[in-house]
Amino acid sequence: MTNEINIRLLFGQVVRKIRMANNISQEELGYLCGLHRTYISDIERGIRNVSLENIEKIANALNVAPKDLLDFTFIED
Amino acid sequence: MTNEINIRLLFGQVVRKIRMANNISQEELGYLCGLHRTYISDIERGIRNVSLENIEKIANALNVAPKDLLDFTFIED
Repeated sequence: MTNEINIRLLFGQVVRKIRMANNISQEELGYLCGLHRTYISDIERGIRNVSLENIEKIANALNVAPKDLLDFTFIED
Repeated sequence: MTNEINIRLLFGQVVRKIRMANNISQEELGYLCGLHRTYISDIERGIRNVSLENIEKIANALNVAPKDLLDFTFIED
């Protein structure tokens, strides 16, 4: 850990923001991704160091491109 | 594995393309990232399911944003 902005937290904030904009619950997103609800919760809290394949699953479930989940300008505004 | 395009392979191709455009070796990139040369080689061959924190390390070393490493339009052209 450095004093840099934590990429896990930023990623989690983007996932949460897009999920809520789509009006779906963590449980629904988990179902759409094939991931457990508690894993989605952990991601949104910045606990998980998510891998490429799970980034892709989440992006597909949210109907965005994988790169959109790393677009942190979306939450820095 | 499905018949979808493999995100690990796409990611590896983007890393390789940006690395070569910057005229640095896998060994140099590994040194800049704090990752082993063979890990960089594995990434470029699509073997590794790279995590957020390593995506960030590689992006920093290549002077791009993390999302740029998931911009697959860059290699689909």
